Amino acid sequence: MNNKKRFYEYGLIEASFPRGKGNKISDVPGVRVGHVTKVEGENVRTGVTIVDPGIQNLFRNKIPGAIAVGNGYGKLTGITQVEELGTIEAPIGLTSTLSVGAALQGIVTILSGREALGPIDGPNVVVGEVNDGFLNDIHVDSINVEDVENAYKNLTEDFSVGNVGGGTGSRAFSWKGGIGSSSRVIKVENKTYTLGVLVQTNYGGSLSIAGVPVGKLLGETDFDEFLPGNLGGSCMVALATDAPFSSRQLKRIAQRTFLGLARTGSVISPTSGDYAIAFSTNRAGVEGVGTKMLLPDSVLYRFFLTAVEATEEAVYDALFAAETMRGRDGNVRDAIPVERVVKIIKSYRHAA
Amino acid sequence: MNNKKRFYEYGLIEASFPRGKGNKISDVPGVRVGHVTKVEGENVRTGVTIVDPGIQNLFRNKIPGAIAVGNGYGKLTGITQVEELGTIEAPIGLTSTLSVGAALQGIVTILSGREALGPIDGPNVVVGEVNDGFLNDIHVDSINVEDVENAYKNLTEDFSVGNVGGGTGSRAFSWKGGIGSSSRVIKVENKTYTLGVLVQTNYGGSLSIAGVPVGKLLGETDFDEFLPGNLGGSCMVALATDAPFSSRQLKRIAQRTFLGLARTGSVISPTSGDYAIAFSTNRAGVEGVGTKMLLPDSVLYRFFLTAVEATEEAVYDALFAAETMRGRDGNVRDAIPVERVVKIIKSYRHAA
Amino acid sequence: MNNKKRFYEYGLIEASFPRGKGNKISDVPGVRVGHVTKVEGENVRTGVTIVDPGIQNLFRNKIPGAIAVGNGYGKLTGITQVEELGTIEAPIGLTSTLSVGAALQGIVTILSGREALGPIDGPNVVVGEVNDGFLNDIHVDSINVEDVENAYKNLTEDFSVGNVGGGTGSRAFSWKGGIGSSSRVIKVENKTYTLGVLVQTNYGGSLSIAGVPVGKLLGETDFDEFLPGNLGGSCMVALATDAPFSSRQLKRIAQRTFLGLARTGSVISPTSGDYAIAFSTNRAGVEGVGTKMLLPDSVLYRFFLTAVEATEEAVYDALFAAETMRGRDGNVRDAIPVERVVKIIKSYRHAA
Amino acid sequence: MNNKKRFYEYGLIEASFPRGKGNKISDVPGVRVGHVTKVEGENVRTGVTIVDPGIQNLFRNKIPGAIAVGNGYGKLTGITQVEELGTIEAPIGLTSTLSVGAALQGIVTILSGREALGPIDGPNVVVGEVNDGFLNDIHVDSINVEDVENAYKNLTEDFSVGNVGGGTGSRAFSWKGGIGSSSRVIKVENKTYTLGVLVQTNYGGSLSIAGVPVGKLLGETDFDEFLPGNLGGSCMVALATDAPFSSRQLKRIAQRTFLGLARTGSVISPTSGDYAIAFSTNRAGVEGVGTKMLLPDSVLYRFFLTAVEATEEAVYDALFAAETMRGRDGNVRDAIPVERVVKIIKSYRHAA
Repeated sequence: MNNKKRFYEYGLIEASFPRGKGNKISDVPGVRVGHVTKVEGENVRTGVTIVDPGIQNLFRNKIPGAIAVGNGYGKLTGITQVEELGTIEAPIGLTSTLSVGAALQGIVTILSGREALGPIDGPNVVVGEVNDGFLNDIHVDSINVEDVENAYKNLTEDFSVGNVGGGTGSRAFSWKGGIGSSSRVIKVENKTYTLGVLVQTNYGGSLSIAGVPVGKLLGETDFDEFLPGNLGGSCMVALATDAPFSSRQLKRIAQRTFLGLARTGSVISPTSGDYAIAFSTNRAGVEGVGTKMLLPDSVLYRFFLTAVEATEEAVYDALFAAETMRGRDGNVRDAIPVERVVKIIKSYRHAA
Repeated sequence: MNNKKRFYEYGLIEASFPRGKGNKISDVPGVRVGHVTKVEGENVRTGVTIVDPGIQNLFRNKIPGAIAVGNGYGKLTGITQVEELGTIEAPIGLTSTLSVGAALQGIVTILSGREALGPIDGPNVVVGEVNDGFLNDIHVDSINVEDVENAYKNLTEDFSVGNVGGGTGSRAFSWKGGIGSSSRVIKVENKTYTLGVLVQTNYGGSLSIAGVPVGKLLGETDFDEFLPGNLGGSCMVALATDAPFSSRQLKRIAQRTFLGLARTGSVISPTSGDYAIAFSTNRAGVEGVGTKMLLPDSVLYRFFLTAVEATEEAVYDALFAAETMRGRDGNVRDAIPVERVVKIIKSYRHAA
Repeated sequence: MNNKKRFYEYGLIEASFPRGKGNKISDVPGVRVGHVTKVEGENVRTGVTIVDPGIQNLFRNKIPGAIAVGNGYGKLTGITQVEELGTIEAPIGLTSTLSVGAALQGIVTILSGREALGPIDGPNVVVGEVNDGFLNDIHVDSINVEDVENAYKNLTEDFSVGNVGGGTGSRAFSWKGGIGSSSRVIKVENKTYTLGVLVQTNYGGSLSIAGVPVGKLLGETDFDEFLPGNLGGSCMVALATDAPFSSRQLKRIAQRTFLGLARTGSVISPTSGDYAIAFSTNRAGVEGVGTKMLLPDSVLYRFFLTAVEATEEAVYDALFAAETMRGRDGNVRDAIPVERVVKIIKSYRHAA
Repeated sequence: MNNKKRFYEYGLIEASFPRGKGNKISDVPGVRVGHVTKVEGENVRTGVTIVDPGIQNLFRNKIPGAIAVGNGYGKLTGITQVEELGTIEAPIGLTSTLSVGAALQGIVTILSGREALGPIDGPNVVVGEVNDGFLNDIHVDSINVEDVENAYKNLTEDFSVGNVGGGTGSRAFSWKGGIGSSSRVIKVENKTYTLGVLVQTNYGGSLSIAGVPVGKLLGETDFDEFLPGNLGGSCMVALATDAPFSSRQLKRIAQRTFLGLARTGSVISPTSGDYAIAFSTNRAGVEGVGTKMLLPDSVLYRFFLTAVEATEEAVYDALFAAETMRGRDGNVRDAIPVERVVKIIKSYRHAA
């Protein structure tokens, strides 16, 4: 873990609900994240990140889940089964575009080792990706089954953000991006629930931080990148909660994460693969499983608001954590100048 | 038309592409808008707005269209046929929640009168609504077929914004809202296309204008309204363009309008009916109709960006145009204090 | 109610599960159906059918529901809210294409009378239709609010099938069709559930009854009707059950009804509005409502099989119940020759 | 290729339109199919099938495509991008459940070799699967990148059906299934188009052939297999045409293939992964590509009818071509007794 101060520690943005203790997706009890980061030679700048819901025998003990599609230009696996059954049954993988097959095989291998799969058990695995090809040679088989197993072994609540795992070679706007995270604690009557978000940023637009047009003030030229001939980019979002919701409710929450991206300056580019994978660690939402009551739709507003705010903040977290990287063919992606950005935002604040 | 200065005339927000000459949806050639505004007695504060694509014999000469759903808590008609066939074949109606049936009948009546429908012709009509029940008694049959016919007779390029038509009794955040509009002119190679947006606002959140947290600075208390027991609210969006796009492309453009709402402070509340109805006045996108080439996906980024920006601006347009209104049971919805808001935003600008 | 023997009484088709006692949708406890049939002068041959789930204060006590779209060329209302919230909150209306607005207003009126709606309550009403324009002048305002109220007053478990209500002027293949119904009783462990289907047929193809190509053997010429210039037709399906299912599960069940139509010879024509509206009278599937356990997905196969079989049989029920009708401009739609059909089918059976 | 007579050669079923010359998907000009069949030791009974549209530089010269989901319990890749962009850009793979990752990597490898992919090109690959675990040990890495490359090398118009490629270890109802195919030639005005279907069967129900309840007459016990604890099964469908259609039109055609499965006795089981991947080899349907006119929706009925009939027939083709196989743990799946089935069906025909 690097020593950079995290975005939220600068106090630049308000939260409608209190942050979780680590301000990470792993604040949701049980949820852990593992990275493998591959920085090799001149041209390999990639990795894989596993988000594990922390359920014993997850394949048997499926949890409620849903996937929202902001723009479907991505190689996500597993979506139709999540849509049909409303459940997640395997750890989630985030990696580089052409490593999806390897990540898929890696996660099946992990499940086979852990859960004594029967002869006809074919788990449904959700793997997402971003195209880190600016810094990374995506046509090299950088990620293999062993890497995925190692990411799984690295699962921890105290995971790093920035240039790690699936975010190793990725960007955000004109700068280096990567993995970011955030969480909130929400009260419903007497009970307290956590909602956490993890992002793997690789998209552009005109960067806005907490409403301040930081991109323009820094002379960002990202817009031109989206003109014909250039690729836009993607953002993967994983969203976890321990609140008892059905897959239908989780899908609605997941859809709000794209509004969080909008706040950062994204218009969800036509060539982006923007997906939000949401799950609840509470199994009550799986039909036939339990008699525990789900939360009613009437409480959803605060979870929607949280999904928006936590996603927005997780993107800034990735930006502030990332470090300048040189990669494929000498391409360089600079870290955002944190101190300058903080100054710009604060000068706005003073004015109000 | 009232004499209030329109939002964009204050120069508070940049546009990535130039505005159309009226900065309205009617800048798209052929498109016209007609209102009927009903302010009667203490309790009737409602109306109907017609958006007409301006195509001769529209029912026979269907145009490419698509509808995006931000949150489906609304009584929109006609969506499945638009989804199935990718076409719009009737003028679009925007009215109050319980007047949808009347608006539907009214538009069928208009088509029957204009287009000599055959004995089995049953046009598909898209009618959207917002719940203006705070100021308006929605259980009274305020809107009838004749009103809809009158709205149609009122079609004009030079339509009013604010407390008119379907926006007569509606709100935006803590203030009076209504109808707003905006447009942009986009160049693609040698050709110039217009994209225009019209909104019927009736939603809340924490108002942000061009990134400035205006709602909080004005002491907005709207958030509490969304707690259980209160209704959130809706935003209807109509989006027109003369660019030759297929219904698939129009749907993707329509989906971006919700990102524009996000910029204004909406999280797309769980009780909102947020729909974007998009159409192209160029029939090339209807299969079997013409040999004219459609624009490729590679130009979509600028239309996405425009959909976001024009929707955002149309909301501010509605807010700035609306006037304080007293209605049902003495309920009052105040106009936003325009001069104070302008000052707040400008003080931010100076600081940068 | 006419005295014709119902299809199932001929013993021509097997049922994988036992039929309910009336072999109708009203075998699901609480569910009732009401018709108003309008046969006036030469040109009015239409009506409205209400399917009521039988829940006290349904608007407040919403039930799990879902709508599947076989082909969306129809004027169905209310679908986006059912999709978003997974609930049905009003009786379902089935009528003629251009009477949807009237049916919508009628059902709102019924709810206002029964449920003391609050000032901002805007119920979501699902109304479906078929185009009965061959026998009926759809451009006349045949259905009004009072008719809908009368259909509601006529609610009964012992409703008629054939040329009644929304099926008054409709067809099936080359013959007169109308309303048909069927039901099954399904055991799951110690408990017994009922699934019932009601159809409003108005579609074509090449009629097959229980696998026998009856249409071809009767010299059916319906296929030609679907060539360009002719309208195909629609089938509305209402499906009720008292089994505790979520809206997700109900949607999957609803989707199977189209496979039942396929068995009768439909290919779901491009100009059909084929929709299946499914609901459970058990509220356990509404999030936040109860702690009762839903049935697991593992029992769905028998409900899928039942949805297919009951829909198929309900179509034959409509065909066998309908009677020859003369209508608009002297158009005539003949009843299927029941005795001849029975003979044809039986001769097949003997051969095996 | 085995020497068994193909189903259609028995003359048991009528075709509304004439069959293509090989009665296979490869009757669509350019389309070819390649298999690799792996029968090794006791436990490996699997393979991979490639369906190639026959377009030079397919990744650059994308074609219109669409995917319909009958039931989403399957591990299909690539669907969101096809949904978003309406295009197919890589050969389609069909394999065993846990070999999807390998097939994905194999097809990317093929594209890299053939098309000189740029540094950031990440092709979207559609791979489908069925669970052949009854006869095959799916947990062994039977399929590797080289196999996929070999399937590609084997591409031919004159491909085999039955126990080959992705159908090596699969079933149909109570019997051995596999790969089947069928095609039709459709006239539209002066022009002639071909529509071809290829199925990879692995599903059950109560087998009906051309309306005759063959399953019941053969004492089929398949139904019991679907009770809790047993797995249902899947059917993958690839559908090709040279008719100029948009992705929207292709999706509607694809959805009809499930009605073809219904005719064979399927109710689309809750545990099936039933997907139909449709494409047109005519690029006119890709926005921005050409000025050639698409076919209007008014001709769709005959393509719907064809999709239903060709899919139905392709399933019988697979059943009649398949041969008895012994596999994993000594499990045996018998071939259907063709001569007996032909006799049963003919005795029905005589009776009529």
